[in-house]
Amino acid sequence: MSMEIERKFLVAQAPDIEAANRAEIEQGYLALGEGEGRAEVRLRRRGDQRLLTVKGGSGRTRTEEELELDRERFESLWPLTEGLRVAKTRHLIPHGERQIELDVYRGELDGLAIAEVEFPDEESADAFEPPEWLGDEVTGDERYLNATLAAKGLPR
Amino acid sequence: MSMEIERKFLVAQAPDIEAANRAEIEQGYLALGEGEGRAEVRLRRRGDQRLLTVKGGSGRTRTEEELELDRERFESLWPLTEGLRVAKTRHLIPHGERQIELDVYRGELDGLAIAEVEFPDEESADAFEPPEWLGDEVTGDERYLNATLAAKGLPR
Repeated sequence: MSMEIERKFLVAQAPDIEAANRAEIEQGYLALGEGEGRAEVRLRRRGDQRLLTVKGGSGRTRTEEELELDRERFESLWPLTEGLRVAKTRHLIPHGERQIELDVYRGELDGLAIAEVEFPDEESADAFEPPEWLGDEVTGDERYLNATLAAKGLPR
Repeated sequence: MSMEIERKFLVAQAPDIEAANRAEIEQGYLALGEGEGRAEVRLRRRGDQRLLTVKGGSGRTRTEEELELDRERFESLWPLTEGLRVAKTRHLIPHGERQIELDVYRGELDGLAIAEVEFPDEESADAFEPPEWLGDEVTGDERYLNATLAAKGLPR
């Protein structure tokens, strides 16, 4: 079990990401976690890594378990996520002691960029000073959950 | 990937299960597979075996993938199935070339017994002659899916 504490921001202006690490991510949902207490079940491919992830809870603190899948199992399950998928390019941007994950969406969500920062505890989450290129904070805003974006598209 | 072909029956009278293999099974649902094309995601503990199973499709032919979980991961995920659980005792009963799985439910579903038979192909499924102790066939009847039983209880 791992507990995640993270804050999430929209992006006000493009940061310098020339030197950033970069990964192509495709993810799709077997279950969206709709309804009180229901789990979200996600498939994600990131390069050669294929994961099935189960998440419970919501907001800044969530519980999650990751299971590695071989290619065959992943390919078998992927069709079950049809209509509930997201594709994005992830950039890892160092910022002081923290690392900012900047997700630039592709496909139907083209034009959307969201930044996330993970923290070891609530205090460091509270103390985080966002760089100027980050925009509005959307931590806990359900419209910006990847599951919601996959099912409903861009927030209006 | 595995394709399952199976037929399901209610039980008309108690069969001779003295000599039958027997296993205690607890299962709970992370996702019920409600809605068109949505996946069912199940946790199951059967003795020391702990599985996460994803199923898609419906009726006599379904696709499924099983992932083994260690105890720690299973225990971490199990609370997410609260309110969506089923407990049963499974008896394996030989019947000609086939094996009948007889599930006798415990707890809230006490009094319910369901028998399932798996087949290698559609022809042997059609050719199967149920023994006299089997009752009405309920193959494809959504009221008798374990996910439905877990969420809604005994059919009325």
